[in-house]
Amino acid sequence: MSLKAAIIGGGNVASHFFQALTIKVVSHVFVRKIDSQEHFPKELLREDRDLSNIYVDLVIIAVSDDQILNVLETYLFQANQLIVHTAGAVNISVVLKKYRRCGVIYPLMTLSKSVKVAYQRMPILVEGSDAEVEDLVFKFAKLISQEVSFMDSARRKVMHLAAVIASNFTTALMLDVEEILDRQAADKRLLAPLMNQTIAKIFDGKVKNALTGPAIRNDVKTMEMHMRLLDDFPDIQQRYVLFSNSIQKISSEI
Amino acid sequence: MSLKAAIIGGGNVASHFFQALTIKVVSHVFVRKIDSQEHFPKELLREDRDLSNIYVDLVIIAVSDDQILNVLETYLFQANQLIVHTAGAVNISVVLKKYRRCGVIYPLMTLSKSVKVAYQRMPILVEGSDAEVEDLVFKFAKLISQEVSFMDSARRKVMHLAAVIASNFTTALMLDVEEILDRQAADKRLLAPLMNQTIAKIFDGKVKNALTGPAIRNDVKTMEMHMRLLDDFPDIQQRYVLFSNSIQKISSEI
Repeated sequence: MSLKAAIIGGGNVASHFFQALTIKVVSHVFVRKIDSQEHFPKELLREDRDLSNIYVDLVIIAVSDDQILNVLETYLFQANQLIVHTAGAVNISVVLKKYRRCGVIYPLMTLSKSVKVAYQRMPILVEGSDAEVEDLVFKFAKLISQEVSFMDSARRKVMHLAAVIASNFTTALMLDVEEILDRQAADKRLLAPLMNQTIAKIFDGKVKNALTGPAIRNDVKTMEMHMRLLDDFPDIQQRYVLFSNSIQKISSEI
Repeated sequence: MSLKAAIIGGGNVASHFFQALTIKVVSHVFVRKIDSQEHFPKELLREDRDLSNIYVDLVIIAVSDDQILNVLETYLFQANQLIVHTAGAVNISVVLKKYRRCGVIYPLMTLSKSVKVAYQRMPILVEGSDAEVEDLVFKFAKLISQEVSFMDSARRKVMHLAAVIASNFTTALMLDVEEILDRQAADKRLLAPLMNQTIAKIFDGKVKNALTGPAIRNDVKTMEMHMRLLDDFPDIQQRYVLFSNSIQKISSEI
């Protein structure tokens, strides 16, 4: 069985899905402006909103969350077309209200156009409006990755929240680190092996076993020294206190 | 030149340094209780505090920060013995006040006895009381790793602070993630590829280019949904607000 799909959208998810699926699977890519698209072959690009004569197994809506409804309302689809979106935080019901056969293919990954991803090991969470659809969506997602699992909208939203905390907030912490080290002309890349080891520890057993440092040891002297070093960075100082208190609270519970 | 060392201490740093250096370099390990040590060969272990008849190129004090001074005050050393400590947050002057030839060998890594480390790629920051000592300490650290660099006490303390923020606070964020996902019986390991990708992006160019998610996009609807999902977790909710505000502040500066 050779599955075919059309993609609506030209952003990060759309371009990565196309790269993973290739022209063998993707027959059309609907974008706002053909001119500004370098990540798709020109012959696949369409600017119109009419998919009523396009025969594909599924249509993937890969646009920003707040544009999904707009696409559903302004594009023409085949009767009975299977339509999926790719958003972690958007309920399947947004599509289901308009199209009976629908689903979700959510890649649990930070995707930027220029950054390569190992698609075969990228976790994908799928959902379908019924068993037949779910089966098809699962098979389709398997064309992208080996790591496909079912997850309903309620649980997917929690996973999306967890991904935001894990990825975005860690990145925000690293902005603090960069700011502090830039002042010293010290290279943040010295911390790369430590961070890789930290991540490995975090996913190997319970997280609290990976917790080290002055707060968990209640090493007041070092924490006071750190606070002095942060005198010029009041925002970072505030986060330092918050995290140290939170870690000490955990330590008293262990 | 075959360098020889004695280690004082039986904790995480001591046992990893011994594993990296092996019995070829380490001739003695001074611990509080011989009985409770499994990570060292029995014939190397000593419980006394007398190093006055031990001829080694350097003595490594690998004890907790607040015990370094105690070791310096209660152990007997050779006249002119080169003594180094391994603490990121402790000034070289703590040793220098008592011993003219001294230094620091600080491994920039989270070390637990049972977790393997790729020593050859582990960054080590070294410092010495004079050029001759610094040269010797550098050569010695090279026995452990390829990634040795000089860094004085003031800058090393800032790097130690950066390591605490990067590693410990990220681990604290992951405790939040684990708590949220446990409630859903969802597996946090689904987030491992995302976190590895996030870390890779963070160290590849400026950190702010790695920043994605609802806060940087000012996606209020998703942030409000996340806040509702966190209704049962007031502490995590507080951190969510703090980080989202901080990211939005950055986004307005970009």
